[in-house]
Amino acid sequence: MDQYKEFKVTIENHIAHVAFNRPSKANSLNLNAWEEMKAIFEAVHKNVDARVIVLSGEGNNFCAGIDLNLLMSVNQFSAKCEARKREQLREFIFKLQDCISSIEKCRKPVLAAIHKSCIGGGVDIISACDMRYCTEDAYFTIQEINLGLVADIGTLQRLPKILNPGIMAELAYTGRKVFGPEAKEIGLVNQKYPNKESMMEDVMSIAKTIASKSPVCIRGTKEILLYTRDHSVEESLNYMTAWNASMLLSNDIFEAMAAYMQKREPVFHEE
Amino acid sequence: MDQYKEFKVTIENHIAHVAFNRPSKANSLNLNAWEEMKAIFEAVHKNVDARVIVLSGEGNNFCAGIDLNLLMSVNQFSAKCEARKREQLREFIFKLQDCISSIEKCRKPVLAAIHKSCIGGGVDIISACDMRYCTEDAYFTIQEINLGLVADIGTLQRLPKILNPGIMAELAYTGRKVFGPEAKEIGLVNQKYPNKESMMEDVMSIAKTIASKSPVCIRGTKEILLYTRDHSVEESLNYMTAWNASMLLSNDIFEAMAAYMQKREPVFHEE
Amino acid sequence: MDQYKEFKVTIENHIAHVAFNRPSKANSLNLNAWEEMKAIFEAVHKNVDARVIVLSGEGNNFCAGIDLNLLMSVNQFSAKCEARKREQLREFIFKLQDCISSIEKCRKPVLAAIHKSCIGGGVDIISACDMRYCTEDAYFTIQEINLGLVADIGTLQRLPKILNPGIMAELAYTGRKVFGPEAKEIGLVNQKYPNKESMMEDVMSIAKTIASKSPVCIRGTKEILLYTRDHSVEESLNYMTAWNASMLLSNDIFEAMAAYMQKREPVFHEE
Amino acid sequence: MDQYKEFKVTIENHIAHVAFNRPSKANSLNLNAWEEMKAIFEAVHKNVDARVIVLSGEGNNFCAGIDLNLLMSVNQFSAKCEARKREQLREFIFKLQDCISSIEKCRKPVLAAIHKSCIGGGVDIISACDMRYCTEDAYFTIQEINLGLVADIGTLQRLPKILNPGIMAELAYTGRKVFGPEAKEIGLVNQKYPNKESMMEDVMSIAKTIASKSPVCIRGTKEILLYTRDHSVEESLNYMTAWNASMLLSNDIFEAMAAYMQKREPVFHEE
Amino acid sequence: MDQYKEFKVTIENHIAHVAFNRPSKANSLNLNAWEEMKAIFEAVHKNVDARVIVLSGEGNNFCAGIDLNLLMSVNQFSAKCEARKREQLREFIFKLQDCISSIEKCRKPVLAAIHKSCIGGGVDIISACDMRYCTEDAYFTIQEINLGLVADIGTLQRLPKILNPGIMAELAYTGRKVFGPEAKEIGLVNQKYPNKESMMEDVMSIAKTIASKSPVCIRGTKEILLYTRDHSVEESLNYMTAWNASMLLSNDIFEAMAAYMQKREPVFHEE
Amino acid sequence: MDQYKEFKVTIENHIAHVAFNRPSKANSLNLNAWEEMKAIFEAVHKNVDARVIVLSGEGNNFCAGIDLNLLMSVNQFSAKCEARKREQLREFIFKLQDCISSIEKCRKPVLAAIHKSCIGGGVDIISACDMRYCTEDAYFTIQEINLGLVADIGTLQRLPKILNPGIMAELAYTGRKVFGPEAKEIGLVNQKYPNKESMMEDVMSIAKTIASKSPVCIRGTKEILLYTRDHSVEESLNYMTAWNASMLLSNDIFEAMAAYMQKREPVFHEE
Repeated sequence: MDQYKEFKVTIENHIAHVAFNRPSKANSLNLNAWEEMKAIFEAVHKNVDARVIVLSGEGNNFCAGIDLNLLMSVNQFSAKCEARKREQLREFIFKLQDCISSIEKCRKPVLAAIHKSCIGGGVDIISACDMRYCTEDAYFTIQEINLGLVADIGTLQRLPKILNPGIMAELAYTGRKVFGPEAKEIGLVNQKYPNKESMMEDVMSIAKTIASKSPVCIRGTKEILLYTRDHSVEESLNYMTAWNASMLLSNDIFEAMAAYMQKREPVFHEE
Repeated sequence: MDQYKEFKVTIENHIAHVAFNRPSKANSLNLNAWEEMKAIFEAVHKNVDARVIVLSGEGNNFCAGIDLNLLMSVNQFSAKCEARKREQLREFIFKLQDCISSIEKCRKPVLAAIHKSCIGGGVDIISACDMRYCTEDAYFTIQEINLGLVADIGTLQRLPKILNPGIMAELAYTGRKVFGPEAKEIGLVNQKYPNKESMMEDVMSIAKTIASKSPVCIRGTKEILLYTRDHSVEESLNYMTAWNASMLLSNDIFEAMAAYMQKREPVFHEE
Repeated sequence: MDQYKEFKVTIENHIAHVAFNRPSKANSLNLNAWEEMKAIFEAVHKNVDARVIVLSGEGNNFCAGIDLNLLMSVNQFSAKCEARKREQLREFIFKLQDCISSIEKCRKPVLAAIHKSCIGGGVDIISACDMRYCTEDAYFTIQEINLGLVADIGTLQRLPKILNPGIMAELAYTGRKVFGPEAKEIGLVNQKYPNKESMMEDVMSIAKTIASKSPVCIRGTKEILLYTRDHSVEESLNYMTAWNASMLLSNDIFEAMAAYMQKREPVFHEE
Repeated sequence: MDQYKEFKVTIENHIAHVAFNRPSKANSLNLNAWEEMKAIFEAVHKNVDARVIVLSGEGNNFCAGIDLNLLMSVNQFSAKCEARKREQLREFIFKLQDCISSIEKCRKPVLAAIHKSCIGGGVDIISACDMRYCTEDAYFTIQEINLGLVADIGTLQRLPKILNPGIMAELAYTGRKVFGPEAKEIGLVNQKYPNKESMMEDVMSIAKTIASKSPVCIRGTKEILLYTRDHSVEESLNYMTAWNASMLLSNDIFEAMAAYMQKREPVFHEE
Repeated sequence: MDQYKEFKVTIENHIAHVAFNRPSKANSLNLNAWEEMKAIFEAVHKNVDARVIVLSGEGNNFCAGIDLNLLMSVNQFSAKCEARKREQLREFIFKLQDCISSIEKCRKPVLAAIHKSCIGGGVDIISACDMRYCTEDAYFTIQEINLGLVADIGTLQRLPKILNPGIMAELAYTGRKVFGPEAKEIGLVNQKYPNKESMMEDVMSIAKTIASKSPVCIRGTKEILLYTRDHSVEESLNYMTAWNASMLLSNDIFEAMAAYMQKREPVFHEE
Repeated sequence: MDQYKEFKVTIENHIAHVAFNRPSKANSLNLNAWEEMKAIFEAVHKNVDARVIVLSGEGNNFCAGIDLNLLMSVNQFSAKCEARKREQLREFIFKLQDCISSIEKCRKPVLAAIHKSCIGGGVDIISACDMRYCTEDAYFTIQEINLGLVADIGTLQRLPKILNPGIMAELAYTGRKVFGPEAKEIGLVNQKYPNKESMMEDVMSIAKTIASKSPVCIRGTKEILLYTRDHSVEESLNYMTAWNASMLLSNDIFEAMAAYMQKREPVFHEE
């Protein structure tokens, strides 16, 4: 993998580890960070060495969200015409949305491992991950309401598919902090841990399990889970059938079966 | 605000407090109550003094649901033609549905604070609220199945978006009571409280927090949450972008930022 | 009811009890079992003696999923043309999907009572039931990922409508076991029980309650709950109105009202 | 029917004739005209004497569209905050949209009879009618593009469901005139006529035929046609079934059958 | 193929010819005819000798629609309960809808060749065919409005996807006859012919062309055309990709290419 | 604009003229041509000098579709695993689809001017244009069925939104040629012309008219027309309102109004 300025990226044992790496700014995201994030997930999408991704934060925090200077730049669109200014604003919002959507478009599962602050844009980001895990001292804030804006790059679009609507509304309207134990209770994370070390150990272990499965099936499962989220059961069944008409007869199903019969671990190849 | 016969309505500190006020009938809803409810939420929608709404019940109960005399009136549609009778029936159901939908169409968040009985139509109503809170002795019943009918004014349409489907089905098929602690456990309410006093204190405190936020953003957040509930993530992202192209550059974002920098509370104006 | 080879079916007190009955094979499903399952739910759909269904497993397990010999038969489609082979594969997947969908198409509620193993196809099946209950020693596995395939007959299409998406993803990607207590915690089942006896006692009691309600309303409620799952609130309200324009004025509403007034149990007739 | 300032409204032989009546301004629509239009269609919706509606224009034109003074009033929203100004603008657009949608919500068919100019808002209006007829010297213009705006009250939302997309785009982008003969050729109208007299004669004759049919069926047909426009075939079949479960067994089907057997004209009653 | 009472069915040169065969009743459809129609299209769906279907009428007419005795049987549902009677009615409508939908579910193209009367149920049927052709003396009537009912088995659900909405509405509201030349002009048929002979000659020639194409591709094209009708462009593109991931690499593409290079006719095999 | 190998691109008077430029191969599209096409439409999307696009063909033809060598390359995907091969195939189809979708994503209207052959991929391409015009000797062929494949890069997804379904099916199943006059009659093109010269003159004149309108409104109209194509009227009205809340108050509306009052041509600026 390439080197990045705002992220630390390593791939080992089929696991890509992507870490926010701007700790002096609590891992807040300037324009470069957004662009790098997109570039990274597009690169991992294609990288045959990676089968699963862990997203975490270097330093004392997971991610403090959008850099306020970047946010304030919306006030500097220069068009003299109100409509053209709003066309620029629209492009800007789409751009940030696309950076986050790159997590979903990446065909490999993404596990967010969250410690300490996960604020504003950080919540937008983890909402696009497949799974979320956190430390007990982690805290989550839908910060947008406190900054006088409506969360527009994913939180209000993806988090309601995860949380109970009543809880979702309370968090979006009040902008209050949710700490690790409550995050677990309301389903914002799959599991909470006493500290970052124990969290990383378990998350890496889950990632390792996923990396041991058929890559073709892991990719297919992610595609289908996202499809089902946004479609009816009937549409989903029909699409699944078209999908598996091509994808079922993989080498992996035969390797998995053989391994099962022979009581050994299956070995899958990326290509 | 006007005076109402079946409701007590006050507005203070930007909080509208709407209370069922027919305690001698356990706050059951006759035709006038339905019509008043709609009128109230439409009035609060426009009232610049109110930024958030608390819905509670006067007396010993939250709401006993539709008045049985009103329900039985469906048997009195006079048309000689079966089809025309059913056109009348259809109009009647639409009418009651619209009374409840006025809660959703009101652009300000609605917090239901429930004590003791919340039955039948009461459940339809709280399903349309943004958030729900209750006392431990509150109980909820999808009463329709016990009365020989299919819940048609919101419970079977909105509650499945809130509850786990297995739980939802059990409650809808059995018509059994759910008390406060279970209501909290299954996500029917955000929080349970030992008694009405402690509940009202906390709910009012949450309402106060909401009322302190940018009104433009609170309204936008409600619009967007409802949009997302009924659309795919992709549709929701696209709509959000069109929305914030107009609504992002409010006075409130600049006030919020300034207050943040100056470490003071922001002050927002309704108009 | 007819006799079946792979199932034990009885109807008593308006409750149909359908049990997997191939205990020597851990109730795994060969082709005949799939076809019988469909036939059974279609028969119960029409049987006027049955108002509710309990699905359980004879012997030491609930259901071990698809018989591996049947699964492996996908490798034996004989067409010389790749496209025609995939047309056959598509037909095969549709066929199994339809067997499971017969549970949903049956207009009477289905309660799954699960003990010990519920694996692969067993999870597809319980996802199509209205409610799920289990013993503490029950365990659930999305086995497909371990067999090198993407779950295509319901699990990835229906379970995401039941579980939190983060949990759903973890289970689908890792293929790990979920035991009774966790199943209860994550909402996969409504309730867990210390053993099969206590489970069956309670499940039968719930079924009995459902069987005591208006059959017309129970059928309508199932139809509407499935409709709402796959539609927006607005679409659901509109459809509900068309529905109750025909179905509200049943004999049952009058019987229910009369019984309510007379403080007696209502008596409903199937036809 | 009440009297109106901007419209002439008469009901005779079950036909409501609604005519734009501001001929000195080419029947352009000021605010009062929009509000009256909505009031009229809501009144006809309920009026038992009317079964079908003909919409035409008094004087030398059908309708010149929105009054330019009203359009320019969008520049006068007084809010100091850009976001609040746009909330007002949004309300304003919704209001005009609702006036036009009252034509669709009216459960009785609306036939537009167009002579000479039908411009801008006039095109929005006829797009919401069930059928359109015109004289040869009628002309249609999607005027919005010539006025520097995107047609937002129906033309770009309903006309694409009527016209070929290539033609639709050409008209929307160029704002050119379409005269009667081309209007017929591209399907914008059902029929063209040499002059207003011959048009009115034929349109009234079609209206008379519609008024002679079962009112329950005419209302149902309109509901279903609008439903089908916006839904898939499968959704539409399902909704239709729910609909006719209530509406099929009308007095009218028996009267129609009896009349058919007795070779006489059927006689239907509104109520 | 089996023999049928109400239809004449032959298969020759890969063309299945299905003809209404109750000429003494103007090919009106009694219950047996509906059931046979479904059986026939299900049989042709599977019959490897047939690649395309022509539907025509024996005797002096194409099809006079539902037999009036069958229609009147809706009045004889015996349930004492209004709701249960309407459940029966709903089943009855679904049953007839399914008979017609068997035309669409048959994976082979269906060409309707229509002469003289095509009335009521006949219009429902041809709306479900892929293509329509007629003689000049053919006439079409949405007869339902004349019989006091809303067309519920396909006409109002499928014809609006074929006709201009204004024309559709006029025909549905007035129940007037449309003769061959107008049918061609409004797009109800692809082509009109002076008489049945010339029509059958041309229709058979088109069918022969279709039968000469790759059967896998013809089946796929029908599936995709129906999918696109009911989905957005983006959904359709995505589904198409999943489809062709399995179906593109057929023997037929290689045979077609080889034939193209060798300037000869390709030869395709069914299996 | 940059120079391209397979296309000739010029911008003059706000009109971008894009021409297939591989006349020796009848303007068939090799891989480079597909990639250039995407690059061109993305560049014009951003180019402030261009407000409208004309797409035509250099030499004796418009476009002969996909280069057969490129099509045959699908047979060379090297993966040893059937599933992985089909993942590659899927990527390949998506890639070509995206090249064509760049025409729709370009926010400026595209007019296709077609002479002589428009075959296979050429039909996919013109289906994505806003408007189509042709010479009388132009001919169109859905060539895919003749090559043993199902049209998967746009024709079967976009053309059914343009043509009558019966005609669409006939063309897709038979792969027959449609010449200019029939193309006009069935709505495949807006207009036909005796020769290329007269066509280009008129198309350029239409483009000039479009280029004279407000660029903000032209862009908005294209966005909204595409939105409406794939949404219900109600969804479209709601989205339109959000859109115009930002875009209505442009400089252009005031310039257009002023010009209208002053009876002069308005002058619009891109930025």
